[in-house]
Amino acid sequence: MITLASDFGSPYPAAMKGVILQQSDARLVDVSHDFPRQDVRAAAFWLREILPYFPPAVHLAVIDPGVGTDRAAVAVEAGEHVLVAPDNGVVLPAARALADDDPVQCFEIDDSDAESSTFHGRDVFAPAAAAVHERWQADEPIDALDRVSPVEEYVDLSIPEPEIYDDEIIGEVLVVDGFGNVITNVPGYAIEGCGEVVVNGQTVPVGETFASVPIGQWLATVGSHGNVELDVNQGRGAEAFGLAAGDDVRIGL
Amino acid sequence: MITLASDFGSPYPAAMKGVILQQSDARLVDVSHDFPRQDVRAAAFWLREILPYFPPAVHLAVIDPGVGTDRAAVAVEAGEHVLVAPDNGVVLPAARALADDDPVQCFEIDDSDAESSTFHGRDVFAPAAAAVHERWQADEPIDALDRVSPVEEYVDLSIPEPEIYDDEIIGEVLVVDGFGNVITNVPGYAIEGCGEVVVNGQTVPVGETFASVPIGQWLATVGSHGNVELDVNQGRGAEAFGLAAGDDVRIGL
Amino acid sequence: MITLASDFGSPYPAAMKGVILQQSDARLVDVSHDFPRQDVRAAAFWLREILPYFPPAVHLAVIDPGVGTDRAAVAVEAGEHVLVAPDNGVVLPAARALADDDPVQCFEIDDSDAESSTFHGRDVFAPAAAAVHERWQADEPIDALDRVSPVEEYVDLSIPEPEIYDDEIIGEVLVVDGFGNVITNVPGYAIEGCGEVVVNGQTVPVGETFASVPIGQWLATVGSHGNVELDVNQGRGAEAFGLAAGDDVRIGL
Repeated sequence: MITLASDFGSPYPAAMKGVILQQSDARLVDVSHDFPRQDVRAAAFWLREILPYFPPAVHLAVIDPGVGTDRAAVAVEAGEHVLVAPDNGVVLPAARALADDDPVQCFEIDDSDAESSTFHGRDVFAPAAAAVHERWQADEPIDALDRVSPVEEYVDLSIPEPEIYDDEIIGEVLVVDGFGNVITNVPGYAIEGCGEVVVNGQTVPVGETFASVPIGQWLATVGSHGNVELDVNQGRGAEAFGLAAGDDVRIGL
Repeated sequence: MITLASDFGSPYPAAMKGVILQQSDARLVDVSHDFPRQDVRAAAFWLREILPYFPPAVHLAVIDPGVGTDRAAVAVEAGEHVLVAPDNGVVLPAARALADDDPVQCFEIDDSDAESSTFHGRDVFAPAAAAVHERWQADEPIDALDRVSPVEEYVDLSIPEPEIYDDEIIGEVLVVDGFGNVITNVPGYAIEGCGEVVVNGQTVPVGETFASVPIGQWLATVGSHGNVELDVNQGRGAEAFGLAAGDDVRIGL
Repeated sequence: MITLASDFGSPYPAAMKGVILQQSDARLVDVSHDFPRQDVRAAAFWLREILPYFPPAVHLAVIDPGVGTDRAAVAVEAGEHVLVAPDNGVVLPAARALADDDPVQCFEIDDSDAESSTFHGRDVFAPAAAAVHERWQADEPIDALDRVSPVEEYVDLSIPEPEIYDDEIIGEVLVVDGFGNVITNVPGYAIEGCGEVVVNGQTVPVGETFASVPIGQWLATVGSHGNVELDVNQGRGAEAFGLAAGDDVRIGL
């Protein structure tokens, strides 16, 4: 199985699939091609949240604002999974989660003869994922592949941690999902036991579910990823709270 | 085969697929993950229109504004199909269509130990669909599954019927599709033989195809679902007629 | 394998998949269902760019502003591929690319008993693609199928060619992609060696990659399809240059 993720929208992912299917009969599963454009950190968050729900697989992730520069292409072995991506850290949080905090092993993929300078998803990463999948499926080492070599140094990326004090948490919005839910980097346990919190000066109830408040009312909840979310029951938290990815969030307890 | 439908947009459906693929090698086919958010009736309409075109399958449908409340999770046996969904009626019109008006049988799925309170698609419905699929594929009864028991009572939902008089029909907009076509609950036969109709005071021709009127002109037609649609040839009927889901439509004959 | 392309958005493509899966166990791969609505030329361009990356397959493409009129349905044999589409030329540029400029063979599919007048994707093209796929997979001639007959005449369509002069090129915008990149019909070689060009009066650098200019700066580049693109590094070229599909582009060298 090869999963695919990108910020390409449509129809570019189809070219990647065609290239893979020329080389491989792997099952293809889309994670998303609608990740926020060129937002490496947002994609890193979503991949970390979603890929651990998959069985062992090769995961292709192309969020690549540096396409055509000398940034490398990498394959990262993490537990029974392999992640193929540009070397900008986008798969590192997911890799650590998939490896269950065991060490990951990074390999560089030579991309020096890519056909285009602007679509390495098609010309570098798709053929690399197909080649890696063949090795992975045969349970053979990745670095037996041509043009692949282990490296010690690669770009890492961490989801930022909040500052947690006795009476206040200073966190950050990681992403806004399609429902308008504002997903912060604040871990759910930090608001455990609170009946309400003060978000950027606004007091809101803490609910276990959206439906714990009337339709249209604001709330804080612990989302399916375990982080504090700012929501509106059957509405959009982002517009209500006036928050977007990257914004600071100050939560008074 | 398991089909998947939701109002989740992206990337949440991928977590459901990962969970299913941990348990099952079923073929996965997306129906849509862009159903109007939390609009149970719109999803019920689309599922009724689309699922009967599928071969026998397990159909997972998660449109779930009551997630985290005590609403149950259900599996509904309908002919050779099984539908897995929240107990809010969203799959009942489709189930009746799939059962060809034979009785359907409803089973409750115990969801009391779900990991999250906000993403039962991943934590309840996806594993339930995979488990049901295994039974279904083996032609074994569903209620042999742990945590599944037959129930007599469940939430039903019907697509509303129009009032049809000799010279007027009082109907309702069910959904607006992506082309802007306004799909009503008025059956096509109700305007059979009419050369034109009066829609909320506006006289428009009745055409068999969009192209039966010039580009940009309004018309009424009988859509692929058999209902009266209000359209603009190569344009958007919703904006032209000023109509949205739930609006009343008065059609003079 | 059957690939699927349309301008249907969601959920209509699912009905096509259901119909195909009733008749066939082919692998289904989506090319895109978000092609610009009823823009036959834009779809023709994208199909020509993407389908050649696929292994031999049956390709279903339904961009069909004339649905319900007497336009025919066709199957086009092109090399080891077969394309099924309305007879409006939408697959002809792709067919020529897949045939490697060998002649293509066109067959008409009788669609006279379609159930609906507005959804031939479901009622004509999907069953035709499934039937063609069965023949194709068995390596049998397509016209042994019922209701299919070879034709000499069919609608052709060419991507328009630019006028290339010594100091100027008069081209046209073919499509704007999801990133806002403006894709023209000007071949990349026409600006080879230029350090900068003058686009509709505006001087912009020519870069090999988006990242060859600072973030937010305009540039011309040769895109992954080999054509001149007008872009903004990590921004949207369409808004910056004020260009949309069909607009003229005058490029001074």
